[in-house]
Amino acid sequence: MLDTMIDRIGPLDETAMEKARRHHDALAIPKGSLGLLHQLGIRLAGITGTPLPELKRLAVVTMAGDHGVTAQGVSCFPSEVTCQMVKNFLLGGAAINVLTRHVGARLTVVDMGVAGRLPEASLPQSGKTRFLSRRIADGTQDISLGPAMSVEQARQAVETGMRVFEEEFELGLDALGTGDMGIGNTTPSSAIAAVLLKRDPADLVNRGTGLDDEALRKKVEVVRRAMEVNAPDPDHPLEVLAKVGGYEIGGITGLMLAACAHRVPVMVDGFISTSAALLASRFHPHVKDYLFSGHRSNVSGHDLMLSSLGLRPLVDLDMRLGEGTGAAFGLSILAAASRVGVEMLTFEQAAVTNPNVEKAY
Amino acid sequence: MLDTMIDRIGPLDETAMEKARRHHDALAIPKGSLGLLHQLGIRLAGITGTPLPELKRLAVVTMAGDHGVTAQGVSCFPSEVTCQMVKNFLLGGAAINVLTRHVGARLTVVDMGVAGRLPEASLPQSGKTRFLSRRIADGTQDISLGPAMSVEQARQAVETGMRVFEEEFELGLDALGTGDMGIGNTTPSSAIAAVLLKRDPADLVNRGTGLDDEALRKKVEVVRRAMEVNAPDPDHPLEVLAKVGGYEIGGITGLMLAACAHRVPVMVDGFISTSAALLASRFHPHVKDYLFSGHRSNVSGHDLMLSSLGLRPLVDLDMRLGEGTGAAFGLSILAAASRVGVEMLTFEQAAVTNPNVEKAY
Repeated sequence: MLDTMIDRIGPLDETAMEKARRHHDALAIPKGSLGLLHQLGIRLAGITGTPLPELKRLAVVTMAGDHGVTAQGVSCFPSEVTCQMVKNFLLGGAAINVLTRHVGARLTVVDMGVAGRLPEASLPQSGKTRFLSRRIADGTQDISLGPAMSVEQARQAVETGMRVFEEEFELGLDALGTGDMGIGNTTPSSAIAAVLLKRDPADLVNRGTGLDDEALRKKVEVVRRAMEVNAPDPDHPLEVLAKVGGYEIGGITGLMLAACAHRVPVMVDGFISTSAALLASRFHPHVKDYLFSGHRSNVSGHDLMLSSLGLRPLVDLDMRLGEGTGAAFGLSILAAASRVGVEMLTFEQAAVTNPNVEKAY
Repeated sequence: MLDTMIDRIGPLDETAMEKARRHHDALAIPKGSLGLLHQLGIRLAGITGTPLPELKRLAVVTMAGDHGVTAQGVSCFPSEVTCQMVKNFLLGGAAINVLTRHVGARLTVVDMGVAGRLPEASLPQSGKTRFLSRRIADGTQDISLGPAMSVEQARQAVETGMRVFEEEFELGLDALGTGDMGIGNTTPSSAIAAVLLKRDPADLVNRGTGLDDEALRKKVEVVRRAMEVNAPDPDHPLEVLAKVGGYEIGGITGLMLAACAHRVPVMVDGFISTSAALLASRFHPHVKDYLFSGHRSNVSGHDLMLSSLGLRPLVDLDMRLGEGTGAAFGLSILAAASRVGVEMLTFEQAAVTNPNVEKAY
């Protein structure tokens, strides 16, 4: 399934982009004065193949998993919080619930490999939140001692993400936001980024949920050991995922690859989702063209990852939470860009004098 | 009326802010991980006097006026476009219509002094757009030759803005965004900022809707002349408005002052609205506490104005349009911050382990 999906990923539609560009230039405003909104609108045309696509059906998919490496003291929070937070998502009381409601997106929460007790079956939709049980294992193994999972499990994680995407697509989907929940998951994300970007772990490891200096130094050492023990081949993204990744990270990678194959724009959340985007971009060179960055996370290392993907974050609110909260804000701006294309009048339609063509309509 | 309104402006409510701070610290997330959203929420508490205020009724008021200084060739667009664009607002086809619809805000458009033919009476609401005819004159006089208006007209502009605010407040208003429409109005805005910040005009004048180098150089000279000819006293904001301002700028200043008096938060748009904010802040030292910056405008000079007000813009999308478009995005983020306070569960409510108190609930 993985290979078939990747084979479907194609380039942006240049014809649709050119039509969108001409339309944006004809809007009754000084040329280019809506800045990034024009650029977002034009890229949306290229992704969807429609010059002026409407983005009405928005969804955030938040994938959860646990991490054996928490045994090394890499997080301020105990592993049990992953499970507790998933339950909070189902209660509708977490930040991602509030922010998806605020921007008019639906929310799907997926158990990709949470260690604690969660429902075995997928739950019926409660409010705007769906829950899917797709657990591959009770959390990963400790990456500082060996691989997080087998290559077969890594493939299963990515393909599970692809299937979750296809379910969302069946429900109707114009743009997808990604999110994560997993105590300890900045550690595998840093490791993935260090491997793929060939950087020293110290450039990518950060305080996560709030480590002090001593714990931060130890976390760098843990990532360094994970890279030495596992020696992942940076040219094989599935191997990188298996050796130093996580189930929710693999799931997000799968979501992204399937979205590209279905020509659906993807709003990438913060540090963890961006590490999944790095992995996804190594499966196919066109993946980057389908990605947008929702926000600049307030943790060190994120900028390096964004610049390697060529992504400019849409907001910078000093957030560092994950869950998809940055993607929610980004989706709202992306939807605004699509509405500008669809709903604004041109100089001619609004009977506004256009000095660029030196005539009044 | 002006003095009575200003006398009502008071400091932030420290008790409400402290309650808000404690609530934000108890939310089931790593402390402070929603970044600016916490800070926005806490300031909203101080403004409204309610620890967790709800921001449901949002409005953008876009004020329009013409400028005699356009005779000096300071804009790419002819003056007639101000009137044409106001008509476009009433058709619902402009960027501000699209973006207020997108963020769930209503829109009121006010003729403060447009030179062209607009309805003499206020129009019934069409869709979500109201129109108010409050015309003080058919545009300002050319500020490079003398004052824009009389001091009496300047007072009338500010007080008209205050009355418009009170009408909005009667309709129900939790947060106000400001916007402007006026061909040529970056010129008086630059002049106001240069006078109040005691800077050289070259630090504040910009390309506006797209001037070339030669026209930009000429615009700096026009602002320099306006300052020399009029010699406004920087310690008298009403005199500054009269000598180098505009009717829509005075109206926006009045909106802001009345909002402060009524303890309603104000989302400031870009360059023109920020010049009105500079004026408003000179009427009373507490005004700044009620202001938020919606976006960083993509024109030079705006950063100087923002930093003098101590405001950090909420988004930076390379926009430079005005109309209230930056304020619309800012209002949506401010409303999100209020929902975080109202709707999220605490560690205790969500039964999530809080390592900071070293016990599980």
